[in-house]
Amino acid sequence: MTASVLDQIRFDSAGLAPAVAQQHDTGELLMLAWMNRTAVEETLATGRVCYFSRSRNSLWRKGESSGQVQRLIELRLDCDGDALLLLVDQHGVACHTGRRSCFFRAARDGELVEIAAPVVSPEALYPAG
Amino acid sequence: MTASVLDQIRFDSAGLAPAVAQQHDTGELLMLAWMNRTAVEETLATGRVCYFSRSRNSLWRKGESSGQVQRLIELRLDCDGDALLLLVDQHGVACHTGRRSCFFRAARDGELVEIAAPVVSPEALYPAG
Repeated sequence: MTASVLDQIRFDSAGLAPAVAQQHDTGELLMLAWMNRTAVEETLATGRVCYFSRSRNSLWRKGESSGQVQRLIELRLDCDGDALLLLVDQHGVACHTGRRSCFFRAARDGELVEIAAPVVSPEALYPAG
Repeated sequence: MTASVLDQIRFDSAGLAPAVAQQHDTGELLMLAWMNRTAVEETLATGRVCYFSRSRNSLWRKGESSGQVQRLIELRLDCDGDALLLLVDQHGVACHTGRRSCFFRAARDGELVEIAAPVVSPEALYPAG
């Protein structure tokens, strides 16, 4: 059913495309991660965002460890077909540091400055054991 | 001066990092492109966004052909240092098709649907000769 969408995505030589997640109602940019064809297919089928983890080399169902899932509102593709925009409803926080957004460092006067504090502790997101 | 910012960006094996441009006041996601170290350095120094074109293998001063420049409001880096967010003030349109945003196709019922029309004709952006 989603073949025509999948076939218009130009994945790179590793089979991946960058995907940007944006909170659908506030416009806040949450994170940038990667998707392969299977991740896009699963995301469209389930409505729950699944990425591909380059470090673990496997599908990464966002929130599977932390509970901080992303519900897909809409998937968009850019003009040349090699980048994805995911409009999502983020449950809790997107960043593993406990911040709402992964983009919490800003370049100001030549230095990186933290512009957002954690709203959840990483220990609460990823309990030991 | 910006060495500490540049040194904290983790460029990939090709020396590039994905950069997402967002209109600073409306939150609209405009485009995703790539930057190398020189592009980031120039962007921070001039306040005018410069990418690296993978197809042309050279610096790409956004708007150099079309006049549709991006003024940098703030550059942000994500938690693991390998993705950039550029808050910009986009002059005119970001997309070479004449649309405000490159993400003008949405997956709906398994098909890609155009959700935005050009506001400028590509011929007006890139006059022949």
